[in-house]
Amino acid sequence: MIAKTPNPPYYAVIFTSIRTEIKEDYLDTANRMVELAQLQEGYLGHESAREGLGITVSYWTSLAAIKKWKMDAEHQIAQEKGKSLWYKFFKTRVCLVERDYEFQSEFEIPGG
Amino acid sequence: MIAKTPNPPYYAVIFTSIRTEIKEDYLDTANRMVELAQLQEGYLGHESAREGLGITVSYWTSLAAIKKWKMDAEHQIAQEKGKSLWYKFFKTRVCLVERDYEFQSEFEIPGG
Repeated sequence: MIAKTPNPPYYAVIFTSIRTEIKEDYLDTANRMVELAQLQEGYLGHESAREGLGITVSYWTSLAAIKKWKMDAEHQIAQEKGKSLWYKFFKTRVCLVERDYEFQSEFEIPGG
Repeated sequence: MIAKTPNPPYYAVIFTSIRTEIKEDYLDTANRMVELAQLQEGYLGHESAREGLGITVSYWTSLAAIKKWKMDAEHQIAQEKGKSLWYKFFKTRVCLVERDYEFQSEFEIPGG
């Protein structure tokens, strides 16, 4: 669920969105886009959560890989449907990940 | 809900986490940390969602501002409690936001 990314530097695309009430085709398309993204050269992983606000972060080896994915024909159609149907508002931020660190609990958490 | 950030470049800290079952003090501390972060010099905003996986992105003017916040005394205590109580796993990624763009729907969405 948390993307296993290599040592920095690598790229992140933070996509923050507020949905409309329109559900038509949304889930199928979202799942298809995850499937397609995973096939792209330079794709490293992604993380996603929605709680009113939706945040999806995808990780990539390079800006070139991000641009190529953005221009993918099927992805372009999905982006257009996103604007006309599914999203009230979104913001996309393209970032260079400069450092990262992680924590793993050493305890077995009861009920966890 | 979506952070109003200035034109790039600026910094983002992507904090991705999986919680334990332990709820004690978590919400109060999380709210207090948001309140405290907002008072820090260089804080630009934050976005948060949890759906199993939790993703919180905070935005900052500089690496120096991020480091100073990380070293804040009250924040340090919260970070330690995070490791001993609230989180099974987390990953923090410090990123330079190089470009961003946004979309705002031009339509009033019925029921939206």
